[in-house]
Amino acid sequence: MASRSVLTTQCLFSIARRSYSSNVDKNVAFLGLGNMGGFMAANLVKKGFNVRGYDPSKEALTAAAKDGVKGANSIAEAVDGVDAVVSILPSNKVVLDAYLGKDGVVNSVRKGALLIDSSTVDPNVPKQIFPVAINKGVGFTDAPVSGGVMGAQNATLAFMAGGRKEDFDRSLPLLKAMGAKQFHCGEVGAGQVAKLTNNMLMGITGMATAECMNMGIKMGLDPKVLLDVLNNSSARSWSTEVYCPVPGLVPTAPSSRNYDGGFKNELMVKDLELASGMALGIRSPIPLGAVATQLYRIVQSRGYGQKDFSFVFQLLKEEGETK
Amino acid sequence: MASRSVLTTQCLFSIARRSYSSNVDKNVAFLGLGNMGGFMAANLVKKGFNVRGYDPSKEALTAAAKDGVKGANSIAEAVDGVDAVVSILPSNKVVLDAYLGKDGVVNSVRKGALLIDSSTVDPNVPKQIFPVAINKGVGFTDAPVSGGVMGAQNATLAFMAGGRKEDFDRSLPLLKAMGAKQFHCGEVGAGQVAKLTNNMLMGITGMATAECMNMGIKMGLDPKVLLDVLNNSSARSWSTEVYCPVPGLVPTAPSSRNYDGGFKNELMVKDLELASGMALGIRSPIPLGAVATQLYRIVQSRGYGQKDFSFVFQLLKEEGETK
Amino acid sequence: MASRSVLTTQCLFSIARRSYSSNVDKNVAFLGLGNMGGFMAANLVKKGFNVRGYDPSKEALTAAAKDGVKGANSIAEAVDGVDAVVSILPSNKVVLDAYLGKDGVVNSVRKGALLIDSSTVDPNVPKQIFPVAINKGVGFTDAPVSGGVMGAQNATLAFMAGGRKEDFDRSLPLLKAMGAKQFHCGEVGAGQVAKLTNNMLMGITGMATAECMNMGIKMGLDPKVLLDVLNNSSARSWSTEVYCPVPGLVPTAPSSRNYDGGFKNELMVKDLELASGMALGIRSPIPLGAVATQLYRIVQSRGYGQKDFSFVFQLLKEEGETK
Amino acid sequence: MASRSVLTTQCLFSIARRSYSSNVDKNVAFLGLGNMGGFMAANLVKKGFNVRGYDPSKEALTAAAKDGVKGANSIAEAVDGVDAVVSILPSNKVVLDAYLGKDGVVNSVRKGALLIDSSTVDPNVPKQIFPVAINKGVGFTDAPVSGGVMGAQNATLAFMAGGRKEDFDRSLPLLKAMGAKQFHCGEVGAGQVAKLTNNMLMGITGMATAECMNMGIKMGLDPKVLLDVLNNSSARSWSTEVYCPVPGLVPTAPSSRNYDGGFKNELMVKDLELASGMALGIRSPIPLGAVATQLYRIVQSRGYGQKDFSFVFQLLKEEGETK
Repeated sequence: MASRSVLTTQCLFSIARRSYSSNVDKNVAFLGLGNMGGFMAANLVKKGFNVRGYDPSKEALTAAAKDGVKGANSIAEAVDGVDAVVSILPSNKVVLDAYLGKDGVVNSVRKGALLIDSSTVDPNVPKQIFPVAINKGVGFTDAPVSGGVMGAQNATLAFMAGGRKEDFDRSLPLLKAMGAKQFHCGEVGAGQVAKLTNNMLMGITGMATAECMNMGIKMGLDPKVLLDVLNNSSARSWSTEVYCPVPGLVPTAPSSRNYDGGFKNELMVKDLELASGMALGIRSPIPLGAVATQLYRIVQSRGYGQKDFSFVFQLLKEEGETK
Repeated sequence: MASRSVLTTQCLFSIARRSYSSNVDKNVAFLGLGNMGGFMAANLVKKGFNVRGYDPSKEALTAAAKDGVKGANSIAEAVDGVDAVVSILPSNKVVLDAYLGKDGVVNSVRKGALLIDSSTVDPNVPKQIFPVAINKGVGFTDAPVSGGVMGAQNATLAFMAGGRKEDFDRSLPLLKAMGAKQFHCGEVGAGQVAKLTNNMLMGITGMATAECMNMGIKMGLDPKVLLDVLNNSSARSWSTEVYCPVPGLVPTAPSSRNYDGGFKNELMVKDLELASGMALGIRSPIPLGAVATQLYRIVQSRGYGQKDFSFVFQLLKEEGETK
Repeated sequence: MASRSVLTTQCLFSIARRSYSSNVDKNVAFLGLGNMGGFMAANLVKKGFNVRGYDPSKEALTAAAKDGVKGANSIAEAVDGVDAVVSILPSNKVVLDAYLGKDGVVNSVRKGALLIDSSTVDPNVPKQIFPVAINKGVGFTDAPVSGGVMGAQNATLAFMAGGRKEDFDRSLPLLKAMGAKQFHCGEVGAGQVAKLTNNMLMGITGMATAECMNMGIKMGLDPKVLLDVLNNSSARSWSTEVYCPVPGLVPTAPSSRNYDGGFKNELMVKDLELASGMALGIRSPIPLGAVATQLYRIVQSRGYGQKDFSFVFQLLKEEGETK
Repeated sequence: MASRSVLTTQCLFSIARRSYSSNVDKNVAFLGLGNMGGFMAANLVKKGFNVRGYDPSKEALTAAAKDGVKGANSIAEAVDGVDAVVSILPSNKVVLDAYLGKDGVVNSVRKGALLIDSSTVDPNVPKQIFPVAINKGVGFTDAPVSGGVMGAQNATLAFMAGGRKEDFDRSLPLLKAMGAKQFHCGEVGAGQVAKLTNNMLMGITGMATAECMNMGIKMGLDPKVLLDVLNNSSARSWSTEVYCPVPGLVPTAPSSRNYDGGFKNELMVKDLELASGMALGIRSPIPLGAVATQLYRIVQSRGYGQKDFSFVFQLLKEEGETK
């Protein structure tokens, strides 16, 4: 499958090149050099791209410089003349300002460039940016990621992209430099929809694993035996196999390192709130998603927003021990 | 692993034989010849066991006779003189009556026999039967199954057993004749706990898959693309890979054959109610399990209790289409 | 209290008159002559106001004409030259179009007029209209109502208003002609917030009454005795006292007339969705509100959207009887 | 109504007296002299009953002695020869032991006595005690109370009783000495059903009030104005009128005295768990009750079990403020 995918890509890429009358996109601007972006920009440098970066934090710029990322003083300066822009930013508002602001990406980038936003935001955000970009002769794709900080560091991220097929194909050399999987999910915004759907389902399944493991253990089962049964039965999932919320059963899971270094609870809350808003807008029923959102929020309100989202197991466990 | 497991079994089995001063358990009584039990008894016959069956339904007895199961007119007659008893019965009350009633199994079986109950019941049920059986010099293990009617037919069931290790080991030749996996989960009742924990987690994950797939599809994603993304990401589970609730995506899933021939919604409701009762008894919090129980009940109340439990997708879909 | 309130009103009203340099607002346009609006406009006529009405439905206009409401062919024609406009319209979009559209209210009404929108909408809708109106020298208040069709007919509605105190005071003669209670809840939008908060709380309490009454009755209690106990204890509410969801206990409740003629389930769903959106926007946790929203939606999806919202009792009752 | 009720009582009481061939029940044993029982026993003394009390706590006995309650060293000693027994005990097990234990009430009390258990327990508990008592020629009624410590102190409790009409009528002089309202809810156990139904509905309504008030206040409404609106609209309830969870709005509510001195959260959890178990047993759907149970448990697990149950408002408020 990998080889076929490469062939397809080359084929479509040459079309893309023609339609944009450009060579390979070597000169790249990277916006947002935080936990994720820092590693992603560094991977682009490693794969031979020329990367100019921007972040409001001086520390982030200094750190990125060590990885070979040239610093810029503003978005406009960063994107000036580049072939492509990659961004990963924290919120709807920051993304909209960065792209559509007066000195933002769309106004400052050259015609024919390709814009790739890997932020996780409301699907309406890329839908607002897309027509403005297209109108200026610039390509745009929303391409949020799954895989966390580890995936960013090891270039094993999964990208879920939305937008025109030609832009997706053109983005592949860049996405492949930063990750292991690339999905073209549909029209613009589809990447966000896929990402939010995945994360809501992961959030519910993870919490369900926590509450059921806790129940079985409280009933006297050996945690290892229970997990073995689940992993060999119809209740198995990524959460039981890879990310078990009970400490000590899966050595590489965040639960086994004090719930540090995983997908932060506060980010899970953010994604569930975005997904909830999306569901509300189309009147799609999410009975379990709604309850899970409330409970992850409670974990956050108790001060554990920085812990991995599987920390909810500890909340449920403690609750059972009350009185 | 398979070969080692066989060795272990032989080894322990010989101990078991000695402790019971018996030969291999060749003569078996089978109680409950319904959808599951009929196939299970037939598989025992196929593997060379002598099987005498009992079921209150004449039709069930006639059908079983064609598979080589000798009929009996009562529980007492069925279990008279056999080496082992296997049962799969519909409710707490039926199991308690069958085992502890005046002319029930425990009073009618010979000393040294082994009793294996594969019904799904409250863990307190086997805990009530066990001491009475042991006191009479009879072994007892609770060994509920996972895998459904297909698993029963194809002898690919998973058995989750509780009870003494010696009884579990002794039961292995029988369990292996009827299924593919055997777990010793702990003391008596542990099989029920593992089964109920697995099924509650499967029930929540399945419903979560239904609500998230429905949301993503309503947002415009191609169902196949969405499922492909989920199966390659952190939201993957048995429900997304094997049992997708959206018709047509997984050809072998019940959803692709009009939700027929799977794990019936009404059985899911039964198991969730047993699990809820278990959780309530130990004050274990099950926020998602509680909501899922209510919603599967609604499916049943609408008249779809005979459909596979993944039918909940249709309820959620229809809801979204209202007005 | 009534007499003091009248004094206060007169006093503030005279100030209001001065600030607008106008006499009493006698000439009124009424937009939206449906189930609610038809009765409200008729009550204004009865109290001596000159009312010109507009509705896209010819039938509604014809019916209103019998109550003395003069018909208009467009919003612009209806509001031309009037002292005040009252509207009650079905959705965010219809309200925004009616007020801010090219030939809408704000562009067509005379300077110094007072606009009163009694629609139930997202609080952001009045917040968008308000500054545009003020900028044109026109007063605006959001004043959604509680009390249903009966309240509209009998002029016993409660108005929950938001906006400037002076506009609220000026609106009182009109509101008093149409209802029995008037609350000034705060700045513009506050009327919507109060209305949505009230209706979400009513929706949860009503459903809770249904599920608890159902439970008690299923346990064998006489429904009358149970209701008597609740009404004399700490579980009493408007739902137990006035609106009991069990048929036959409160003769004037919709449940006692086949759940007809009350507050329609589909309107409850609409209000709960607006409230849920509001809560999501400010990250306010609504665990019970979220579950209630899902369940009222299920009632609607089953085809009972036209029934009173207390019909949920029948769903819960039926569910319990399954199997 | 009060006078008629007195007449009815006298009439039925004379029948009761005859059927038991006894005089007025003057000599009373009181079991359980805790927060509630201490005041209840003291009120019996005040109204002229001779009260002999028992409690395993020496402190409780000493405190009760000051109110005129004679101390006993055991249940058997306390109930020896009395006309009636009143008890209020903490759990299913304690009640069953006290009544049906070897030296318990039923074995130790004289024939013809009347037993009144005011504990809140599973309805199956009184159903177990009743036939044993009747068989010994002793009357029994379950009569749990509503009204809290204040109600116990001021003799304003409401009693919800189950059992034979003759026993209920006979109990009235005692119940009236300790409370203001007495309901005969039906057969034995019906008092518990009514009590648990009331408390589950109160628990949901109280939590709904907390989440909706919190939402409205976060949206900018003045808390007093919002409460005024709710109390005059369809969302009003005992929780909004008497027990508002927002501090400072209802001066006599526990929320206004730091959530102390009310109905403890941990007792609400106990009652919700009993009600949940009851609902599970009859397969009665309680979607909101199930969620409320989970959330009150979370409050308890955070260490606020001693606070009034309306403290959940603080949890929801804090949650909204996170991040």
